[in-house]
Amino acid sequence: MINILEKLYTTIEARKGADKSVSYVAKLFHKGTLKIAQKVGEEAVETVIAAIAEDKEALVNESADLIFHLFILLADRGVKINEIVDELDRRMGLSGLDEKALRKMEQE
Amino acid sequence: MINILEKLYTTIEARKGADKSVSYVAKLFHKGTLKIAQKVGEEAVETVIAAIAEDKEALVNESADLIFHLFILLADRGVKINEIVDELDRRMGLSGLDEKALRKMEQE
Amino acid sequence: MINILEKLYTTIEARKGADKSVSYVAKLFHKGTLKIAQKVGEEAVETVIAAIAEDKEALVNESADLIFHLFILLADRGVKINEIVDELDRRMGLSGLDEKALRKMEQE
Amino acid sequence: MINILEKLYTTIEARKGADKSVSYVAKLFHKGTLKIAQKVGEEAVETVIAAIAEDKEALVNESADLIFHLFILLADRGVKINEIVDELDRRMGLSGLDEKALRKMEQE
Repeated sequence: MINILEKLYTTIEARKGADKSVSYVAKLFHKGTLKIAQKVGEEAVETVIAAIAEDKEALVNESADLIFHLFILLADRGVKINEIVDELDRRMGLSGLDEKALRKMEQE
Repeated sequence: MINILEKLYTTIEARKGADKSVSYVAKLFHKGTLKIAQKVGEEAVETVIAAIAEDKEALVNESADLIFHLFILLADRGVKINEIVDELDRRMGLSGLDEKALRKMEQE
Repeated sequence: MINILEKLYTTIEARKGADKSVSYVAKLFHKGTLKIAQKVGEEAVETVIAAIAEDKEALVNESADLIFHLFILLADRGVKINEIVDELDRRMGLSGLDEKALRKMEQE
Repeated sequence: MINILEKLYTTIEARKGADKSVSYVAKLFHKGTLKIAQKVGEEAVETVIAAIAEDKEALVNESADLIFHLFILLADRGVKINEIVDELDRRMGLSGLDEKALRKMEQE
């Protein structure tokens, strides 16, 4: 798993300078943050719909698409993948996954 | 990284039978698919906004929230984390990350 | 204004039985609720992005698209436009627009 | 209908200078564009979910909420309601509702 996700992020980042005529990722980087963010929003909508429609195959596909485009957005904005992992780690840390989340929820 | 993400998914799944009065994740499982899917949609909206507003700290937080709730949705729907990894792997496989994505894009 | 919005809804509803090869609306009805709902979600994402990017022309276009597809979704689900108007009316009624909304907000 | 929607927009706009401690709309204007846009995104997610879950009462409520918050976003960004109506009118104009939409669709 580590290899896949880190490889995914590294591969995406390496596409930043690639020829946009041959690379989908390079093409998206070239279109810019607004377009990449739009794709993240769209893939999230499709993920939500697949989950509710109980279409498991679509849910797997759309979730992969969502993570894929989220990673492109993070790379575009200069966020490293470990910053996300550290944040997830912090939430699962000393105080436990749920205490942290519950506290956040109560503030909303 | 592997440890964190697999641990995250395992921890989430273990909350399925937990007491909903002490666990945020158990509480969400209890509310059901519609509510979990709604949270995924909301976190995606916040991620999109943080990216465009160039608020890097918020982008890290919201991206972590998005992945966290996406994993809850997958666990709720019975999707294992390797199914997502396999799908991402397939896209990065023999034919290369971009060829696959480009082909998909051309069909849209 | 009344003419336009009622005409819009009536026109959309009249497309329910139309030939899907010549009518975009008929084509969407034919694709079904999931696809129409997906369009509503996508147009909302584009509206949000246009607003934050301060692109006023895009905001006008995407808001029109959002209302247009929302009306198709309502027609698809058998909701009449006056049901929405009545609901908006109720919120602006005796107790005032904000009291109602505030009460709702405090419950969240 | 005309009265309700124009009254809704006028009422919302009149709240721009109102006391944020008593008015939900004034409170939202005070929080700013990002927060208002976030609400539009969230209401769209809830509308999509209500439609797919075949919960007609929720669909009416969430659609009203979506229009309500969309109007707040438009007022916040200085877009007049007739600009949206004009845009919808243009799409239903001489060339017909669907031809325009189809042309737009083919460009995507």
